[in-house]
Amino acid sequence: MRSRLFLPKGFFVSGIRSGIGNKVKRDIALIYSEVPCVATGLFTKNRVKGAPVIISKNHLRDGRAQAVIANSGCANACTGNRGIADAETMAYELARQLGIRKEDVLLASTGVIGRFLPMERVREGIRKIARTVGKASKPEFFAEAIMTTDTTPKIISKRFLIQKHKKATICGFAKGAGMVHPDLATLLSFIITDVAINRRLLEKSLKASVEMSFNSLTIDGDTSTNDSVLILANGKAGNERIDIVERDFLEFQNSLDRVMLGLAESIARDGEGATKLVKIIVRNGKSASSARKIARHIASSPLVKTAVYGSDPNWGRLMAAIGSSGIEVNPEGIDIYFGKLQVARNGVGTSYSEGRARQILDKEEVEVTVDLKQGRSGAVVYTCDLTPDYVKINSSYMT
Amino acid sequence: MRSRLFLPKGFFVSGIRSGIGNKVKRDIALIYSEVPCVATGLFTKNRVKGAPVIISKNHLRDGRAQAVIANSGCANACTGNRGIADAETMAYELARQLGIRKEDVLLASTGVIGRFLPMERVREGIRKIARTVGKASKPEFFAEAIMTTDTTPKIISKRFLIQKHKKATICGFAKGAGMVHPDLATLLSFIITDVAINRRLLEKSLKASVEMSFNSLTIDGDTSTNDSVLILANGKAGNERIDIVERDFLEFQNSLDRVMLGLAESIARDGEGATKLVKIIVRNGKSASSARKIARHIASSPLVKTAVYGSDPNWGRLMAAIGSSGIEVNPEGIDIYFGKLQVARNGVGTSYSEGRARQILDKEEVEVTVDLKQGRSGAVVYTCDLTPDYVKINSSYMT
Repeated sequence: MRSRLFLPKGFFVSGIRSGIGNKVKRDIALIYSEVPCVATGLFTKNRVKGAPVIISKNHLRDGRAQAVIANSGCANACTGNRGIADAETMAYELARQLGIRKEDVLLASTGVIGRFLPMERVREGIRKIARTVGKASKPEFFAEAIMTTDTTPKIISKRFLIQKHKKATICGFAKGAGMVHPDLATLLSFIITDVAINRRLLEKSLKASVEMSFNSLTIDGDTSTNDSVLILANGKAGNERIDIVERDFLEFQNSLDRVMLGLAESIARDGEGATKLVKIIVRNGKSASSARKIARHIASSPLVKTAVYGSDPNWGRLMAAIGSSGIEVNPEGIDIYFGKLQVARNGVGTSYSEGRARQILDKEEVEVTVDLKQGRSGAVVYTCDLTPDYVKINSSYMT
Repeated sequence: MRSRLFLPKGFFVSGIRSGIGNKVKRDIALIYSEVPCVATGLFTKNRVKGAPVIISKNHLRDGRAQAVIANSGCANACTGNRGIADAETMAYELARQLGIRKEDVLLASTGVIGRFLPMERVREGIRKIARTVGKASKPEFFAEAIMTTDTTPKIISKRFLIQKHKKATICGFAKGAGMVHPDLATLLSFIITDVAINRRLLEKSLKASVEMSFNSLTIDGDTSTNDSVLILANGKAGNERIDIVERDFLEFQNSLDRVMLGLAESIARDGEGATKLVKIIVRNGKSASSARKIARHIASSPLVKTAVYGSDPNWGRLMAAIGSSGIEVNPEGIDIYFGKLQVARNGVGTSYSEGRARQILDKEEVEVTVDLKQGRSGAVVYTCDLTPDYVKINSSYMT
């Protein structure tokens, strides 16, 4: 995770303190590109949507953006017409300060739901952060400013060659998503790149990357009011624009996948109160979707997640989770492994060493494999353990 | 809860220590009726079913039973053919000791999944408990013997008049179901009555009562391997057999409802680590099923449950849970109340007193009402808060 960071050409990012959340940390963040970018985004499926989501979707209709203004400390969700007006003011204020079109500003907010933004501070913060453009800044400032209960900033960048000799860069930022099966905690991610690519293919690649990264955190379905993944491509790498699915596109897709998978793993590792990254692998299912449904059901089971926390080799809870996933399975055909140690064969416990199983579950990365022996399709889902700290963090979030 | 206990006529119940779970508490429990009973049951929908569930279903095909043998400490689930043979041995052994038909014995087990029963101790325990029949015993012994992580035994009885002058009794026992949205924790309940009733109506009344009691603990769907609710009616009250849905049936149904709702509430109150009973009321939904789906989704949200634990009036989490339930809602029409205090009107926060909200959430019984203003249907779901103790209990269950 701690590899060197590269920013794509023509982008400026920063993060400052504005006092939105009454916290002593940076809370307002800016992405600015020298030139307008091709841009797209993916947003929460929750029927209750935060005002920034509504405005960003609107501003993305033309597939173009030049800046993103994001804040932590207040989600600006469940705030009615006043919330919409506040979000519009944010876009307008930033556009005015930077001399760009209001419609080219995207928004993202995270924090408590149901409270209004302290607009005086927000406006002041926007003016202040607009003045930082071109001055000394660090990508970490941006990542820190979008954090809520995250314990570490999350940034992954990747540099690669495109069209043989053009250097291209992708840089991704994210904030964590609660217990990772984020029944309601907010996931925000921002990807910037200097690759030249058309909008259709940018959208295609974003969807594909999200599917194998964030959507493998059991995130979809139960999404927060404000979940947003935004991507901006400004073409400053100087490559010929990617217009077809060929080598260049695949090169780009591959690098984007690595950035987003890296972010997803760092989110799982930093789940609220988490002590372990848990990888659930389901093999030999009837279909990819049924394998995935089972993997997600296991990954969301509080009983499985607490057992992992306690390094308790309680594989019966896995069997029970598999059986209640809604997918037709043959319990007498299921094999289960902790790491490489087989603990159940054909639905019945093996004579495995409990001490060895504990050792495996004691590690910071735990791999659980379920072999259904039904077909040839599989799925991988990332999650974390459920700990007393998760409860502590979430029982007093507002205050 | 601490009202006087009545046992129906002709029934004997007891519970003793046999050392199955290596615990210092009673772990094997018996129900015995002097005469064969009309009997039926409802079982887990989990595709992975414990051996006792398979055998009990089988033995209930003729709608008749005379005894129940139950144990805690080992669920006898995920134990393959050996588990089935062990369950059959339990039924056979008890039948032999009591001189009744093997097919008239029902079974229930709860505890760790994936371990074999220590059959020597089980056999010895069955012999011992069979010898207690007719001797001094207490209903509490039975209730204690089926407990796992429960902190209190759960028994509710009700005495009522049937056909004007016949005294009838219903007595119900239950063990708790983990976090109450019991992703996998086991619920067992046993109901005995001396009412004379035919099998079809007994089944009908059981289903109706379970729907408004245990199934309102958000239990169905995500069920454990061993969930079972058994009911036995021996006719010893001397009433004319209930064969039609008329006054007598309604009288019986009403009493059964009260017993089962009482058990359900006591289970919610005693959820693992729980400090509060939480009642989620959804009003004015489009249909009963959609109102119920929303109520259940709220009741299963770890973020809502941790906020209740911390008395944090974070109603935004309720909005987000409502929006991600999969049901079409109009966020701008939603009102939310803690107790009688309205905290949101038309999807936006009211200027409620946070101190007052905290006072309400600080109580041992918390009522949350959501008014959807979509139609005329409602639902009530019971749950409990999610606490650090829940995690502690479940992270070291096997050991």
